[in-house]
Amino acid sequence: MPEKMKAAIFVEPGRIILGEKPIPDVGPLDALIRITTTTICGTDIHILKGEYPVETGLTIGHEPVGIIEKLGSAVAGYEEGQRVIAGAITPSGTSYASMCGFHSQCGGAKGHGWKAIGGWRFGNTIDGAQAEYLLVPDAMANLAPVPDGLTDEQVLMCPDIMSTGFGGAQSGRIKIGDSVAIFAQGPIGLCATAGAKLMGATTIIAVESIPERAAMARRMGADHVVDFSKTDPVAEIMKITDCRGVDVAIEALGTQATFESALRVLRPGGTLSSLGVYSEDLKLPLDALAAGLGDHKIVTTLCPGGKERMRRLMEVVSSGRLDTRPLVTHRFALDDIETAYELFSHQRDGVLKVAITP
Amino acid sequence: MPEKMKAAIFVEPGRIILGEKPIPDVGPLDALIRITTTTICGTDIHILKGEYPVETGLTIGHEPVGIIEKLGSAVAGYEEGQRVIAGAITPSGTSYASMCGFHSQCGGAKGHGWKAIGGWRFGNTIDGAQAEYLLVPDAMANLAPVPDGLTDEQVLMCPDIMSTGFGGAQSGRIKIGDSVAIFAQGPIGLCATAGAKLMGATTIIAVESIPERAAMARRMGADHVVDFSKTDPVAEIMKITDCRGVDVAIEALGTQATFESALRVLRPGGTLSSLGVYSEDLKLPLDALAAGLGDHKIVTTLCPGGKERMRRLMEVVSSGRLDTRPLVTHRFALDDIETAYELFSHQRDGVLKVAITP
Amino acid sequence: MPEKMKAAIFVEPGRIILGEKPIPDVGPLDALIRITTTTICGTDIHILKGEYPVETGLTIGHEPVGIIEKLGSAVAGYEEGQRVIAGAITPSGTSYASMCGFHSQCGGAKGHGWKAIGGWRFGNTIDGAQAEYLLVPDAMANLAPVPDGLTDEQVLMCPDIMSTGFGGAQSGRIKIGDSVAIFAQGPIGLCATAGAKLMGATTIIAVESIPERAAMARRMGADHVVDFSKTDPVAEIMKITDCRGVDVAIEALGTQATFESALRVLRPGGTLSSLGVYSEDLKLPLDALAAGLGDHKIVTTLCPGGKERMRRLMEVVSSGRLDTRPLVTHRFALDDIETAYELFSHQRDGVLKVAITP
Amino acid sequence: MPEKMKAAIFVEPGRIILGEKPIPDVGPLDALIRITTTTICGTDIHILKGEYPVETGLTIGHEPVGIIEKLGSAVAGYEEGQRVIAGAITPSGTSYASMCGFHSQCGGAKGHGWKAIGGWRFGNTIDGAQAEYLLVPDAMANLAPVPDGLTDEQVLMCPDIMSTGFGGAQSGRIKIGDSVAIFAQGPIGLCATAGAKLMGATTIIAVESIPERAAMARRMGADHVVDFSKTDPVAEIMKITDCRGVDVAIEALGTQATFESALRVLRPGGTLSSLGVYSEDLKLPLDALAAGLGDHKIVTTLCPGGKERMRRLMEVVSSGRLDTRPLVTHRFALDDIETAYELFSHQRDGVLKVAITP
Repeated sequence: MPEKMKAAIFVEPGRIILGEKPIPDVGPLDALIRITTTTICGTDIHILKGEYPVETGLTIGHEPVGIIEKLGSAVAGYEEGQRVIAGAITPSGTSYASMCGFHSQCGGAKGHGWKAIGGWRFGNTIDGAQAEYLLVPDAMANLAPVPDGLTDEQVLMCPDIMSTGFGGAQSGRIKIGDSVAIFAQGPIGLCATAGAKLMGATTIIAVESIPERAAMARRMGADHVVDFSKTDPVAEIMKITDCRGVDVAIEALGTQATFESALRVLRPGGTLSSLGVYSEDLKLPLDALAAGLGDHKIVTTLCPGGKERMRRLMEVVSSGRLDTRPLVTHRFALDDIETAYELFSHQRDGVLKVAITP
Repeated sequence: MPEKMKAAIFVEPGRIILGEKPIPDVGPLDALIRITTTTICGTDIHILKGEYPVETGLTIGHEPVGIIEKLGSAVAGYEEGQRVIAGAITPSGTSYASMCGFHSQCGGAKGHGWKAIGGWRFGNTIDGAQAEYLLVPDAMANLAPVPDGLTDEQVLMCPDIMSTGFGGAQSGRIKIGDSVAIFAQGPIGLCATAGAKLMGATTIIAVESIPERAAMARRMGADHVVDFSKTDPVAEIMKITDCRGVDVAIEALGTQATFESALRVLRPGGTLSSLGVYSEDLKLPLDALAAGLGDHKIVTTLCPGGKERMRRLMEVVSSGRLDTRPLVTHRFALDDIETAYELFSHQRDGVLKVAITP
Repeated sequence: MPEKMKAAIFVEPGRIILGEKPIPDVGPLDALIRITTTTICGTDIHILKGEYPVETGLTIGHEPVGIIEKLGSAVAGYEEGQRVIAGAITPSGTSYASMCGFHSQCGGAKGHGWKAIGGWRFGNTIDGAQAEYLLVPDAMANLAPVPDGLTDEQVLMCPDIMSTGFGGAQSGRIKIGDSVAIFAQGPIGLCATAGAKLMGATTIIAVESIPERAAMARRMGADHVVDFSKTDPVAEIMKITDCRGVDVAIEALGTQATFESALRVLRPGGTLSSLGVYSEDLKLPLDALAAGLGDHKIVTTLCPGGKERMRRLMEVVSSGRLDTRPLVTHRFALDDIETAYELFSHQRDGVLKVAITP
Repeated sequence: MPEKMKAAIFVEPGRIILGEKPIPDVGPLDALIRITTTTICGTDIHILKGEYPVETGLTIGHEPVGIIEKLGSAVAGYEEGQRVIAGAITPSGTSYASMCGFHSQCGGAKGHGWKAIGGWRFGNTIDGAQAEYLLVPDAMANLAPVPDGLTDEQVLMCPDIMSTGFGGAQSGRIKIGDSVAIFAQGPIGLCATAGAKLMGATTIIAVESIPERAAMARRMGADHVVDFSKTDPVAEIMKITDCRGVDVAIEALGTQATFESALRVLRPGGTLSSLGVYSEDLKLPLDALAAGLGDHKIVTTLCPGGKERMRRLMEVVSSGRLDTRPLVTHRFALDDIETAYELFSHQRDGVLKVAITP
């Protein structure tokens, strides 16, 4: 095994470069994964632009597909050479937060064991997946074997996009017969649309103006697509629901406009399920909130992680319930990742997701 | 039976007067109640001040204790002369909203059957309880017989104060061993404190500066009382919880300051249960919301109503689990209700709740 | 309007005949429906055989599609001439049970308001739907307008079969990625299979030996069909799930054998959702129950009713999520209902459900 | 540190003796605890009698209070010398079962990760707590620091008795205003009674015939105690609930008679929460189950474990919500544990729980 590896490294706002780093040492609870496919996330673009701060020198990326290269001395239940994925969020399984089921807010074993967003480590607080090798912490809680017969690209959306999108649908507690509106149809919004379909929603309304995304929304399960650039989405959704409003509204962009519209289309007692990463304070208009008397719920969700989550999402893929391959619109070698960032950050050429292969 | 009755009537902002009205006719689904005790709510003060608009000429009040005077022709299961209460919120039981369990957002039998705050009718959209007689709509869904041995004052808090306060605790889904902070200890906040105790919270932190209310908070179950006029409540609550934050924060005032503090003291994944009636847009600070990634829940609750709710609350009273009589600090005849409004609206003389007897 | 109508009347065990009855009077809360299509249920066969006792002279049937002929004086929100369905279960909406959300155990307005199976009235405690006219009690809680464009046969399964089958899936709290086994693929089992698919189960295993039903099971969403006449279903299901067991097992027949097998294929912590109507005591084998230490759940479900339930099920149909028309294998005029009973009770000619039209 | 320790060892049915064993080696994920107090459980008596089979030579006991003697090389977040408890059930935190929240059915890291009762290891599949030293597996998931100021006896019930008893109340999803019946008032039934009180039940009916236990039941929160040796408990409970039945019935003994009575006193839609360890097949009488149509739930619960569970239970103690010290009726040195077994297994001298101190 070599000592050095290539990795996409954050240098400063505006600069993520392909550089070289030592292949990491493997602690007792860790596993070293040789990456076979990874991808770039919208969050990585926030990092690139300096909108979400990380340390200089950090390897970016949190969506790994790969092969176990080496297991830590205390790791049982896996074999080197196994094909695995790990979620974007890597809970310890043993923190107080994890043991309550709040895996994404995992604070590790130390102290009180709760830390906001603490489960997100790859490409945030530790080196990430856009590299030849990836060190997975708390491997026993996080390595999920890929079922035979599934390709890398078939499971590439599981670590983040599917988990987050489905998480939005699940936090909304969608029920059979629900009306659901999903604001924005980027990769996560598209998976939220697919999740709403999978949970039994019968009126699924996607809000999107880009024609390719609108078309993909229909493919993922939308019954209606509302083009907010041509019509008032709130009025249009109220019309579609016969003035009833939706049972669940999913925000998948991260802006005041979409958040507020999501609140305005809710029926009394409905749930606003928020997936967006916001960059400024949010406003809850008094009338939209019925002065606090509308029995509304607002719930935010960070991508659920851990091996059981990954197992279930791969079941969705292997059962044929959802095929996310159409979301992979472009492919690059890791050597060309800077070009991939250039394309993805400017949303050129109808890009939805890119596949990166070392 | 006389034809006329006395009633507290809204005339214009700033004026609620004791006037005279015809005793209402009883429709097939209605019941006419002779009021024996009622009270004034903070919401009535919003009406008095013109902050919450109602029609001129409306009888105010939504907290009835009384005796069935006359039953509608289609009402079964009750007898004239029975002592009953009805909730502040009077769901139909048969609307789409009601049949989903969202009784407070009941839109009646017509149309799509959902209406924000639609279940609140007494003293809002129909004549209310501060009168000699009260017409209860959808009587079979709303009349709750008072168990023998309970006095009017023992059950006077059930229609609104207990139901709302407990509702805040229940919407927070408080579990055994939870830490809970309750912001403001007016009558509703005090009942939220009692509700948190009743559900098994083990660290109950009340935020209040008025000494009498602080003392009552301890009596209702608070383990700690934080005086926000002397210390930063957010810092103090984080200190009490060893920097962990609370599992559930209950807002019981209706201001940006309390709402925001409630959000700031939540642990990741915690629930902000909001009971306040707000009078302006709310702000969700970016950091307090962890940029949308903290798995937070915000839930608003309108007072739950209906006869089953009332039955359960009266069980709490008759079992001795909670005695709300100490909340009744002053007593007035209905003839003196203008004086009662004067006292209550200025929160004079340590008033918590008043009992009004026709 | 005529004074007499035809109706399928229970005379004695073994005899349901087409007879004549007066068209019922309409009370203030009732509605009279002119039946346009109805069907026969397996429960009706239990009645026919004397296994489930009802009064002599009762009109049988609980699955009505029809047109509002006359509304009670206190019924608002509907118009005569509207096309409607009502659920097999007709809750009052205003009983204590109903107001808790247990509509099927509704005890009416009187007394304590809970009665086991009390919500099932049609063809059980009051005259049923296999007639020219049907009196619907508590009409405001039960009449559900049929959306334009849906035929009678498209909504014919909503009152009972879909509601019960989906109810079994919902009581099992099926989640995305679950493995689910459904024992028996009669009409209700088939709808449970469809419900499991609609809720996101990814491994759906139907147990059935009749080839036509096995084929229909696949059409409704089964990934695997286990023929219990050729293989041990418990062993086969454990094999399919890689010895893990299923998350949810649905019993849809009503026998000890299927109930026990459903328990044996559960993973620890799994849920047995029981839909069957049993005719003898059930046994819980000690080993299958892990001596009471396996965190198992067993839940029974009576067909959910009420207009909101019917509205949602018709949404499932109108959205194209499920087409239950293939379940209607035979059609009869009401005049020929005795022939229909003959066919259906002997499960001749591959019958699944019959449509009866007055 | 010595090399040998004293331990209560299972030799054969009828014989548990105090013997000597090597002090165990500490693996990377383990912790070695020096036991300061432990106790004997009813389950240990099943082992003693040969009713629950374990390996010859196994150290018995699963309720440890002690001091960290040595931490495994991969264990972070603790210090040697800390006072801790561990639950009777020691989940890994990282199995599929654990990551779903089913900690008690944890199958370890290997294989599919679910194993019925797999989380119960102490004194079952690995050496237990009735010894001078105890090896705690998966220490980071299981060690819970004891808050300052709490004595050993104050927290001695947390590992099993409180966790199981409260678990029964929690699996029943007790709500404010519920009626709850608890069958048998041994240590677990008493804690279930206390749990019902803590969750807001307002009518708590304990079934017990031994006067000391009846008295203790009232102290733990029972409003009524029914002596089944003098009256039919089913009839009596129906009378107390005015023929309505209870919302939740908790079985805390493990016999057909109590299980069946628990089912018979449920209101339609109620929940039977079973805690008993059964020793023969159970029967579900057809009428008690309403032929499968009563919307009943039956749920079994194995003692919940893990450090977060322990933390919460110790919060209940330190907040003063429950004092379980009265349950400790007798005290023995470890050297005298054979005498303790003698007393406890014959329930002599009003024994509820014993404290054993090495």
